[in-house]
Amino acid sequence: MSKELNIGLVGFGCVGSGLYEVLNKSKLIDATIKKIVVQDPYKERSISKTNFSFDINDILADDEINTVVELINDSDEAYKIVKKALESGKDVVSANKKLIAEHLDELIFIAAKNNASFLYEGAVAGSIPIIRNLEEYYNNDSLTSIEGIVNGTTNYILTKSNDGVDYDTALKEAQKLGFAELDPTLDVDGFDSKYKLVLLLKHAFGLNVAPEEVQNIGIRNVTKYEIAYANEKGYRIKLFSKAEKIGDNVVGFVAPHFVKKDHFAFGVDNEFNALVVEALFSDKQLFIGKGAGSYPTASAVLSDISALKFEYKYEYRKTSEDSQLSFTNDFFLKVYIGSPFVEAINQIPFYRVDELFQSDDYAYQTGWVKFSELEDYNLNHRKEISLVILPEPFKGSESLFSGKLERHRVALEV
Amino acid sequence: MSKELNIGLVGFGCVGSGLYEVLNKSKLIDATIKKIVVQDPYKERSISKTNFSFDINDILADDEINTVVELINDSDEAYKIVKKALESGKDVVSANKKLIAEHLDELIFIAAKNNASFLYEGAVAGSIPIIRNLEEYYNNDSLTSIEGIVNGTTNYILTKSNDGVDYDTALKEAQKLGFAELDPTLDVDGFDSKYKLVLLLKHAFGLNVAPEEVQNIGIRNVTKYEIAYANEKGYRIKLFSKAEKIGDNVVGFVAPHFVKKDHFAFGVDNEFNALVVEALFSDKQLFIGKGAGSYPTASAVLSDISALKFEYKYEYRKTSEDSQLSFTNDFFLKVYIGSPFVEAINQIPFYRVDELFQSDDYAYQTGWVKFSELEDYNLNHRKEISLVILPEPFKGSESLFSGKLERHRVALEV
Repeated sequence: MSKELNIGLVGFGCVGSGLYEVLNKSKLIDATIKKIVVQDPYKERSISKTNFSFDINDILADDEINTVVELINDSDEAYKIVKKALESGKDVVSANKKLIAEHLDELIFIAAKNNASFLYEGAVAGSIPIIRNLEEYYNNDSLTSIEGIVNGTTNYILTKSNDGVDYDTALKEAQKLGFAELDPTLDVDGFDSKYKLVLLLKHAFGLNVAPEEVQNIGIRNVTKYEIAYANEKGYRIKLFSKAEKIGDNVVGFVAPHFVKKDHFAFGVDNEFNALVVEALFSDKQLFIGKGAGSYPTASAVLSDISALKFEYKYEYRKTSEDSQLSFTNDFFLKVYIGSPFVEAINQIPFYRVDELFQSDDYAYQTGWVKFSELEDYNLNHRKEISLVILPEPFKGSESLFSGKLERHRVALEV
Repeated sequence: MSKELNIGLVGFGCVGSGLYEVLNKSKLIDATIKKIVVQDPYKERSISKTNFSFDINDILADDEINTVVELINDSDEAYKIVKKALESGKDVVSANKKLIAEHLDELIFIAAKNNASFLYEGAVAGSIPIIRNLEEYYNNDSLTSIEGIVNGTTNYILTKSNDGVDYDTALKEAQKLGFAELDPTLDVDGFDSKYKLVLLLKHAFGLNVAPEEVQNIGIRNVTKYEIAYANEKGYRIKLFSKAEKIGDNVVGFVAPHFVKKDHFAFGVDNEFNALVVEALFSDKQLFIGKGAGSYPTASAVLSDISALKFEYKYEYRKTSEDSQLSFTNDFFLKVYIGSPFVEAINQIPFYRVDELFQSDDYAYQTGWVKFSELEDYNLNHRKEISLVILPEPFKGSESLFSGKLERHRVALEV
């Protein structure tokens, strides 16, 4: 009835060793880890050295191993391994969002050609079963949007920031607690959230979107002034990955958002992840869980392994050649732009200005911008400009700004 | 690749007519409603009379109909229909928790014997895909507990109560809004929540528990004094369906709970449902969504229909003959018991008393009771006694009360 699984485990870091423990502790799944391949023969590990080998071919060339679980950090190396494993007809479980976001279509093709299954629930939002739910449960309802917090590191930092701790201190705390890497770029500039969004775009809307097409604006430049603005209005700031249908288009991006109190994600703090799925008929659904860490991710990986026993494959039912949907960055949204330098704010083209504020040391402006035009300003690297999205529905068409359509740069006084 | 579905729809009430609309509006699922059977030929309906027939055999005896969607209120009638449909090998989707809770094992047996699929996601927590997730995603992890708000009517009433509206007014409002029936017994006394819990016990822990084995204490007797107590302590009162592993036992019941601010369900208000699933490895997961109403339930039913296209069946993988788990009501928990009559409180056997309070018009006592002993007191019908569970971990064994084990009845002064 169920398939016998002989697992080749690649990587024995945080998640890999967690999986090893979980597999051994959980009585509910019957699968054997036949080989564990790691890179560094000299590293101290929690189990005896005799358990490891150091050549990936020990797994790839072993015909008895029918399941490869890839849990290494290096996404280029991981890509090669996953590709070869699928080519030889082995099922693969991976939690490497970068690898998957960058090569998904090719890997789906190879998997299908070799009748192999490629599962990656652990790649998005740790223990929250979002891919599986999008794939299986929301395959019939008309999804209108998916948004949420899919990066625990930035949510931890923002939680502290919202409570008044400055960015650098919060980042250091996160690093101390092991939530943030020494080089936090992938997290704080929104790349990690973007890779995950690419997978969500595929499973929610059937769209193939390359990571380069998706704009990610991180939290590096969120200052005490944005926090003060949030407090004044009763908002909290959260880094959202967001995809939303506007007509036959789907927009998607990563950026910090001002979140109102009645938003499901308002109180989702620290290292927790949250996803809000909205559909025409089932309305809003919220999923919350731990998004990272050894056990939560390992449990997602384990759930994939368990599904392989029943020969489960993603069907990608929404990806159809006659699908009307296409991905675009051409839409309007309401933003807050803050800076100590009025000239910096004036650079950004606003289509409508709603609020202006200027003081001795800080200025901000709120209003409507065209999202695709923000890309030119490379905001992650402009330390003097802070952008936060305001909670207003997007607009798809310029015509909505009737009478105010001329692009104007409001000149704050310098 | 996918099965052609010819649907016989039984019932055209709130959910049935919602499903009809949703099926016609959603382009993503290809299924035909071949016949609709309703009971009353004279009732006004949203679509033309020519769409209906009035004899259930028009569906049951029609060999072209391979899928019966049962959405009527009368659970005895529904039972007969579902049984006959499964016996003739038709797949069945139902949202009737009472019918399913009372006959699940028999219906599973009949379905398996006739190679039919019996799905009922809409029976628990409307649009929240909890059965599917327990069945598919949490089938490998060691679940430790599941608890939550699965009845929108009582959550609506309690939300108002928490905000200071008295029970009768809140109930009337709920009735006016269509959330509550004219006879609200099933909802407010916790029966509806109990039927749903019985299904959760099956899918979370593989346990067959008859509804009669599960104690349901409702919200009918929650007074302004309990609300005042909650406010003093920073709690809110929520009606929880709860199942939890204690060693090799599983306990399960429905009762009002004082909920702390840091509990996931604290802010889940009005008609929303919430479920918290806790597992050894994936930690706590929260699901929130609309628990009732035409569209949310219809979307769950539709998701089951969609799964039938891919010949999906529940596997009941946790139900195994050698499972160690058994259901029990023998455990200790900390409760609040309030009453205008001290004698009433003194009737309830406490194993340890933590707090006593007495005033001219009200008294309460908090402390530890044995859950199975509460059954004798028929609390839903004792208007003068209010019971609310306090947020303390359950204890499985009397030995935890070392030195205080003698059952004592604290005599408050009358």
